[in-house]
Amino acid sequence: MAEGISLEELQLAARNHGMPLEALRWDVTPIGLHYLLTHYDIPDVDPTSWRLEIDGLVERPLSLSLDELRARPSVEAAVTMECAGNGRARVEPHVVSQPWLLEAVGTAQWRGTPVAGLLEEARIEDGAAEVLFTGFDRGVEGGEEQAYARSLPLDEAFAGDAILAYEVNGVPLPPQHGFPLRLLVPGWYGVSNVKWLSEIHVQEDRYLGKYQARWYRTLKGETVNGEVKWKETAISTLHLKSFIARVSRDGNRHKVFGIVLNDGTPIKSVEVRVDDGPWQPATLDPATTANKYSWKQFNYTWNGATPGEHTLVSRVTDVTGKVQPTTEELEVKKTFLEDNSQHPRKVMIS
Amino acid sequence: MAEGISLEELQLAARNHGMPLEALRWDVTPIGLHYLLTHYDIPDVDPTSWRLEIDGLVERPLSLSLDELRARPSVEAAVTMECAGNGRARVEPHVVSQPWLLEAVGTAQWRGTPVAGLLEEARIEDGAAEVLFTGFDRGVEGGEEQAYARSLPLDEAFAGDAILAYEVNGVPLPPQHGFPLRLLVPGWYGVSNVKWLSEIHVQEDRYLGKYQARWYRTLKGETVNGEVKWKETAISTLHLKSFIARVSRDGNRHKVFGIVLNDGTPIKSVEVRVDDGPWQPATLDPATTANKYSWKQFNYTWNGATPGEHTLVSRVTDVTGKVQPTTEELEVKKTFLEDNSQHPRKVMIS
Repeated sequence: MAEGISLEELQLAARNHGMPLEALRWDVTPIGLHYLLTHYDIPDVDPTSWRLEIDGLVERPLSLSLDELRARPSVEAAVTMECAGNGRARVEPHVVSQPWLLEAVGTAQWRGTPVAGLLEEARIEDGAAEVLFTGFDRGVEGGEEQAYARSLPLDEAFAGDAILAYEVNGVPLPPQHGFPLRLLVPGWYGVSNVKWLSEIHVQEDRYLGKYQARWYRTLKGETVNGEVKWKETAISTLHLKSFIARVSRDGNRHKVFGIVLNDGTPIKSVEVRVDDGPWQPATLDPATTANKYSWKQFNYTWNGATPGEHTLVSRVTDVTGKVQPTTEELEVKKTFLEDNSQHPRKVMIS
Repeated sequence: MAEGISLEELQLAARNHGMPLEALRWDVTPIGLHYLLTHYDIPDVDPTSWRLEIDGLVERPLSLSLDELRARPSVEAAVTMECAGNGRARVEPHVVSQPWLLEAVGTAQWRGTPVAGLLEEARIEDGAAEVLFTGFDRGVEGGEEQAYARSLPLDEAFAGDAILAYEVNGVPLPPQHGFPLRLLVPGWYGVSNVKWLSEIHVQEDRYLGKYQARWYRTLKGETVNGEVKWKETAISTLHLKSFIARVSRDGNRHKVFGIVLNDGTPIKSVEVRVDDGPWQPATLDPATTANKYSWKQFNYTWNGATPGEHTLVSRVTDVTGKVQPTTEELEVKKTFLEDNSQHPRKVMIS
């Protein structure tokens, strides 16, 4: 075995997988090509005896079968999911976890019933602040057995577009995507989208489980008057990011193709730079910008490429003026997850 | 990034994926959990204009649409596929390729039309010796562009159970499994099962393409009268192998569960050894031994496990008397692929 890579990392890399980037040709990623990350063993859930429990600070606790959930109002949405650790393989200091480069993404057509509707039906009591979603997937970490769980602030659970999904790409969820039911929070990193749902618990306390209070957190330092101030936050919505996925020859020009990922905030512009040249505007594909929560595609025509190695890079700006940072800007911030920095791509022109 | 693992290996590990071993609970592996290895980019094949060409040393060359292939006699079979490189991560000297441990396996229910029937229909001419299967997947290696292709000896193509598959687990092939049509050679390593088929060419010459004559070959040395004699062969059928997939507590006993992989030759016995104890018989699950080309499952009840670390290992013997080798026996043979040696598993009993 190659030195330096631990068995643990290798086992993660063999279990989990990214989306081969040529699969960007499909607006909706076929099942089996969408990125997949499972923290514990995939649980075996019997859909006939399974029920979703909605309890805690609610006037009317609910216990619902899959048929009862399917009978409720449903919505369907194309949603791009990205792992918060996408890009982790390049981040220093090195974190021992699934070593993603760029490919921990996928877009699927999910169908389910809105979370907000079920919470209304259960009638939230005063004092509630968080909604905790717990899955059937369990494992031992640090000597302690725990179920996978993540919470959403109550206002996000109500105002957001979160759904409980039972179908993907027109078929019942396959086991690896959370059969029979999973949470889907459009615009949030993959970690929020609890699979194999068993319970929704409305509570006053802040949830402090490991996947929320200990891992998937970002420590950022900002230098103010020469002093670094640190702030730690839990992973939530997708950070603004773009990358070049493909460069192909087209006659004596080259076509540069890439995508934008973010939390659904409309995009203002994407630019591409070749070597040390000026930033040049790329063209956003309007068919993809129309869909709030799915990736946006961009194209750039590169004229006059000379033989030899070149470095291409893209950067995206959203309508609020936020700009995708450079690697140097991110390093100042000591971000250990969510590497959304500009991603230079080397190409060899013959 | 961790030192020692190259970007190339990491990109392979992120694109490709094994089967999480808990998926052994399904006799037929759900789509998305079956192991997947693609050598080049997944091609985009338009099924409406696509045709399969059958040519070369045939009296009646055929050009068939997908509907015409579907209208022919069909067979359905549960077939276990294993990558010839399964176990490669542990093999020394280290080969830079997809670093599998044990998980490059999967069993699917394939439907298609027998290769033999189509060859009969095309009427093979005298002098034919090989049948070459070429896919639409292409890539550049060593400065040379090539299509993925593999050949079968004519007698294997006729006498074997090879089919041209257009369905898996009851649905049309997804893109990553070779849509619209792939070769399936039950009992042969994954490399033989050409995806995205474009052409079947009957020929006199031995095919010398890179995936047959250069890679996926095994160099074995046997010591005869103190001299090592080397023999190089192309990968073909699955070597006899077993491994322990799970050890779980059951009251004050432990249940040991594992699988057997081979080329379809009936199995005589599986044995399990704990630490330096004697080999003990395990029980083969008759439901799985009935199915020629799918994995066989075995169980062993481990009584009296004492607290601490133990090493468990399994070995399988087939009806011809062939026994799964130890790592030492394989190392003598310098096998660079197909690590079918006994695989010790460490367990911690608390």
